[in-house]
Amino acid sequence: MSLTKYQFRAQFRCTNESCRKTYPLHQVIYSCDSCGELLNVEHDIDSLKQVSAKEWKSEFESRFRSSQFPNASGVWGKKEWVLPGISDENIITSGEGTSHLYDASRLAKDLGLASLHVKQCGVSHTGSFKDLGMTVLVSQVNQMISDGVPIQAVACASTGDTSAALASYAAKAGIPSIILLPANKVSTAQLIQPVSNGALVLALETDFDGCMAVVKELTKEKSIYLANSMNSLRIEGQKTISVEITQQLGWKVPDWIVIPGGNLGNVSALGMGFEMMYELGLIDKLPRIILAQAKNASPLYESFKKGFADFSPVTAEKTLASAIQIGDPVSVKKAIRVLKKFNGIVEVATEEELANAAARGDLYGLYNDPHTGVALAALLKSVESGVVGKGESVVVISTANGLKFTEFKLAFHEGKIPNIDEKLKNRIQSCKPNLSGVMEILGKQLKKP
Amino acid sequence: MSLTKYQFRAQFRCTNESCRKTYPLHQVIYSCDSCGELLNVEHDIDSLKQVSAKEWKSEFESRFRSSQFPNASGVWGKKEWVLPGISDENIITSGEGTSHLYDASRLAKDLGLASLHVKQCGVSHTGSFKDLGMTVLVSQVNQMISDGVPIQAVACASTGDTSAALASYAAKAGIPSIILLPANKVSTAQLIQPVSNGALVLALETDFDGCMAVVKELTKEKSIYLANSMNSLRIEGQKTISVEITQQLGWKVPDWIVIPGGNLGNVSALGMGFEMMYELGLIDKLPRIILAQAKNASPLYESFKKGFADFSPVTAEKTLASAIQIGDPVSVKKAIRVLKKFNGIVEVATEEELANAAARGDLYGLYNDPHTGVALAALLKSVESGVVGKGESVVVISTANGLKFTEFKLAFHEGKIPNIDEKLKNRIQSCKPNLSGVMEILGKQLKKP
Repeated sequence: MSLTKYQFRAQFRCTNESCRKTYPLHQVIYSCDSCGELLNVEHDIDSLKQVSAKEWKSEFESRFRSSQFPNASGVWGKKEWVLPGISDENIITSGEGTSHLYDASRLAKDLGLASLHVKQCGVSHTGSFKDLGMTVLVSQVNQMISDGVPIQAVACASTGDTSAALASYAAKAGIPSIILLPANKVSTAQLIQPVSNGALVLALETDFDGCMAVVKELTKEKSIYLANSMNSLRIEGQKTISVEITQQLGWKVPDWIVIPGGNLGNVSALGMGFEMMYELGLIDKLPRIILAQAKNASPLYESFKKGFADFSPVTAEKTLASAIQIGDPVSVKKAIRVLKKFNGIVEVATEEELANAAARGDLYGLYNDPHTGVALAALLKSVESGVVGKGESVVVISTANGLKFTEFKLAFHEGKIPNIDEKLKNRIQSCKPNLSGVMEILGKQLKKP
Repeated sequence: MSLTKYQFRAQFRCTNESCRKTYPLHQVIYSCDSCGELLNVEHDIDSLKQVSAKEWKSEFESRFRSSQFPNASGVWGKKEWVLPGISDENIITSGEGTSHLYDASRLAKDLGLASLHVKQCGVSHTGSFKDLGMTVLVSQVNQMISDGVPIQAVACASTGDTSAALASYAAKAGIPSIILLPANKVSTAQLIQPVSNGALVLALETDFDGCMAVVKELTKEKSIYLANSMNSLRIEGQKTISVEITQQLGWKVPDWIVIPGGNLGNVSALGMGFEMMYELGLIDKLPRIILAQAKNASPLYESFKKGFADFSPVTAEKTLASAIQIGDPVSVKKAIRVLKKFNGIVEVATEEELANAAARGDLYGLYNDPHTGVALAALLKSVESGVVGKGESVVVISTANGLKFTEFKLAFHEGKIPNIDEKLKNRIQSCKPNLSGVMEILGKQLKKP
């Protein structure tokens, strides 16, 4: 099927309902110059409605994992829903999306669920879901440069997955990247991906907020493009995860989706993806959402307990789930809107709960990072409490690769995480170097099948 | 298209040309009980020839894009070529295969190549190409258990990627796994994946060869199934990489494939995949192969220089490419046969060459492990020497995820790898915490676009 006869369009629109000013996507702008609020990418839904739901599904299926550029990417196979105006030759892709939907059938059975799938966003080029959004941002910058917009570099303040994704995609494009980080608070190990990808990595004698302030000033100049999450282009890529999950389930919407939340951009994107499918008729119901927070950084949980009546930032305490150690989330308004619409709940996980839940999942073949641990712990608690019912279908979003968290895994199995009981720890056992030595230990452990 | 009307068959056959004894795949056997040689899986090619090359291509393409079990796996989408007799319900898959073929177009241009792609086998469930073979082995064991073969556990001697893959797939299947390793020679960090996946990990007071001897004794008993690479079931999964690469290139065979080699099972599998496609008419030429070895462990290079006239094992010296630090490769005979048939060459990389080649690739957006560094270094040397010609097309096999090698990346960029010049090292720079501080550094680095 050819969609070339249609004209699809998108633009920035101010999220302030009483402003709603619009801007073209090739303008270097991150917040409304009129009222200061954040922007969204708004699609011309009427033009997308010219294609039937059945045609969209068939088109997305035929493009999924196509070996041809750019449809080998799960994001760019849905280009009309993401950045309809971009020219293919400016797309910078590393095969993001199309991550496996891991069928944790044994665990589902043990929990009494109809099904439990884990969306493996960490099995991706830079090892986290950030690739989904960064391919869109860097491709759009590449388009703007080729259109003559004088952009010299892309920049962000970040200590983790965002900087890894930005540096890698920028390197692929041949665009310089700049990473600002607080000196003495971040180890080289946390930054070794962008260092390897040749980013200009600057350590500033300030805290993270200080770095954010400098990067905002730096990018005011417009020749350096801001890649932090206030840039809504990234959401456009991230929202494709909803389409992929639904497609991988044979266009069936699961009863529940569990997603860890810190800055809350990811749950906003998840919601936008499902809303778009609903509006265009690809699905006829929305899933319920469990937004999972680390108890040590759970401002949204506090708000949820009061029916989202109000929201107060907190000072986040240290958590093993370091990427969601955020007390004042940027995307809180968007997230609350989504949770209300999706009849969602917020659940929390203590350090002990998240660490043991990650380890429990590993015993079924996964290799969970602590953020996926937060999501799994929230699911276990919700099954226990009956909020998630027996026989329901669940998808857990795994946001990062466990290989990024070797220290966490080691500390857990060596019993060295402070103040928690590592109930599920495993250990390496000493054994005599012969058959009888092995059999002696095996005799205690193995049963006849 | 339905292939159910055909009967496809496979069996074990002794690789000794003067023996050629056969065994059914559900027999617990790893080497010929008559002559002691290794076994191969042999397919009934005549039955496969009943399907035309065009039909195979179209079938593989449509399955590759499937999100449904078991075709969401790149290995099981080619089931008839892998294990035709297995029942779908016994397949244990974690979405192996379908890894991205990364288009390193900027690097290709800089090297004067027509194209350069990197097959990202490390972006997979357990972070290495071993998943491709282990899904086959564990699925076959699962089939045998369900057929009543009294298997209690799977076992291997390994310190790295093999044990990670075995433990994960066994955990998914709910089959106990046993890992034997030499005590005091392997860190917990190297074993943290199987430890996390609940394997019984035993440390023996001996060296690696000692562990291999014990695991061979242990698995003689037949209720514990051997998962080391002498088990040829794994090759069946690994060979699908050739089909995937060719398919991802639009069924065009590249001029060259570069692959790192230690135990040499991987290059044997690569060759078998191309030979099978050639025999069944899917392709009409074979690629040339560059087998890349670390200079510190390069017995095959020594043999190659003498036209493969003979082969002598060596004592491998320490190399950053730890997984191919092997002086006496198990699959050397198979590998030499493949290299002769594919007009292949062997090239070596010093520690300095492999480390800098890995880093050079990173500057184009990759994140290379040291083994991929060996392959890239061999390519750079072959382009330099003119063996790989300007305008040729090249695919490099990346065997593992760079995220498994944080220490290597850190040591490189901190300039701490002994006795080498880290020419391409990058560093984190101190910067005053304000705009002018950043601009001062930027002014020296950025040019107007």
